Amino acid sequence: MTGISELGEFGLIGRLAARLPAAPAVLLGPGDDAALVAAPDGRVAATTDLLVEGRHFRRDWSGPYDIGRKAAAQNLADVVAMGARPTALLVGLALPPATGTAWVERLYDGLADECAETGAGVAGGDVVAASEVTLAVTALGDLGGAQPLTRSGARPGDVLAYRGRLGFSSAGLDLFRAGADGPAELLDAHRRPRPPYAAGAEARALGATALLDVSDGLLQDAGHIAAASGVRIEIDTARVPVPAVLGPDGLRHVLTGGEDHGFAGTFPPDAPLPPSWTVVGTVAAGTVTQGTGVVVDGRPAGPGGWDHFSS
Amino acid sequence: MTGISELGEFGLIGRLAARLPAAPAVLLGPGDDAALVAAPDGRVAATTDLLVEGRHFRRDWSGPYDIGRKAAAQNLADVVAMGARPTALLVGLALPPATGTAWVERLYDGLADECAETGAGVAGGDVVAASEVTLAVTALGDLGGAQPLTRSGARPGDVLAYRGRLGFSSAGLDLFRAGADGPAELLDAHRRPRPPYAAGAEARALGATALLDVSDGLLQDAGHIAAASGVRIEIDTARVPVPAVLGPDGLRHVLTGGEDHGFAGTFPPDAPLPPSWTVVGTVAAGTVTQGTGVVVDGRPAGPGGWDHFSS
Repeated sequence: MTGISELGEFGLIGRLAARLPAAPAVLLGPGDDAALVAAPDGRVAATTDLLVEGRHFRRDWSGPYDIGRKAAAQNLADVVAMGARPTALLVGLALPPATGTAWVERLYDGLADECAETGAGVAGGDVVAASEVTLAVTALGDLGGAQPLTRSGARPGDVLAYRGRLGFSSAGLDLFRAGADGPAELLDAHRRPRPPYAAGAEARALGATALLDVSDGLLQDAGHIAAASGVRIEIDTARVPVPAVLGPDGLRHVLTGGEDHGFAGTFPPDAPLPPSWTVVGTVAAGTVTQGTGVVVDGRPAGPGGWDHFSS
Repeated sequence: MTGISELGEFGLIGRLAARLPAAPAVLLGPGDDAALVAAPDGRVAATTDLLVEGRHFRRDWSGPYDIGRKAAAQNLADVVAMGARPTALLVGLALPPATGTAWVERLYDGLADECAETGAGVAGGDVVAASEVTLAVTALGDLGGAQPLTRSGARPGDVLAYRGRLGFSSAGLDLFRAGADGPAELLDAHRRPRPPYAAGAEARALGATALLDVSDGLLQDAGHIAAASGVRIEIDTARVPVPAVLGPDGLRHVLTGGEDHGFAGTFPPDAPLPPSWTVVGTVAAGTVTQGTGVVVDGRPAGPGGWDHFSS
């Protein structure tokens, strides 16, 4: 097995670049001081996230291909949540020098395959030595002349709805921690989210007033919309489906579990929402300052979702 | 002293965002799923670099302000080396939870002040917990309708010239390693590069055929131009100024020291280069495959500059 220390930095970068498929928006790919990415709108949506070994993934739970897909997905979902079309990723990779080349190549395959789901490409990156694996992924996107779908447009009278899975990744994480070997559906959901990328354009067409991807948990992310919009969001748990596979803690996973990267948004009350969207709450005037900033079944909800530094 | 673990992720992000000055190209800053950055050219130059504690900086040698400036500078220089104008940075920050808030704030001050030298702004980022400090900086830039200055345009007959310091950071690093307390000029140069950002627009106006920032050392980076352009670059050390402050190893530092982030480029032989540019070589037909891919004083030069994985 070839280790990356034998290839050297430039050898590794060349080898990885050769694996990347072409993408229409990547006008100039890896190999120069900077990449060049199409931004026909004249504005570019840009977001960056770090994934650190042992905190955001574990190499004994997830293979490199899934880690690559997850790292790409969480950034691509952020771009889609702005109502933009992903165009390119930049990938910074910190690796222990003993890492095998094949492991890194599979990681890149995962990044490239997840990009392909949205039409984006990997435009460039950086590889450095470190004591733990860290991925720093930046995603770029194009708005196509439309206004961004921010978190601040929710208005009293709107409904809160989501599209995509909730709680699956969180339930899978609990299983990994307990040493369980199934259900595979949940373990796989933790290894690799499957954001319904079409939800961005769909939400725009449906007249969404605010949109985000659920990365911190439905309560906490709805709280982000409430805070940015200066409104009160009321969630009715009777309207929240809890798939049986999530087990006895299903409702907690659905309300507070992050990392599935579905999409939640607010819509005018008469928006013709198709069955792909589930309405779980309403927007009212006023604000809630306690806890997550949302009201659940009539009471302000305590802290939930994820906060990387607090317990 | 407040530690970041007491503020929590969202508290820290909010506190950092509040310190960032506005920048004209940052249309939507931190706080949503993605930032929105002006890209009037319709294309965006994009580059990303990782800086890892203990490998790219040491907290006992450099304070947070200088680390911030360095992290910004090396990415801004990459954008300038494409002939683009920097517009925005995205900053991913991995921090041990015990890190003091004041330390992180000074790091952000350094990022913001370095950005201000180029007119760019900090548009967004991510903060996560980790066991070592890692900065993942992405820089974006706008070409203003011009073609990018890549590494592949050097032609036989061109001259090789550079603008900016060479060898200062490398000499400073040797001093830190030896435990020396001066000269301060060299220690400071290692803590914080000072790229002559105006060199990008100047090189374009002078008809540069290729341009890059010197991050791996003059020989190695000239080799990158030679390889990308399919030419032979010949450096004449008699034409390479070696400032006395660099000490007895001065020529080695100038030829192989990276991280000062000056700019090197190739120009037509009749380009009216002002004194800010120093001609140190010529471009000829043919290629050199050994070592760094350049010829120094008539002989192919062995490996030099930096390679993060090889010794």
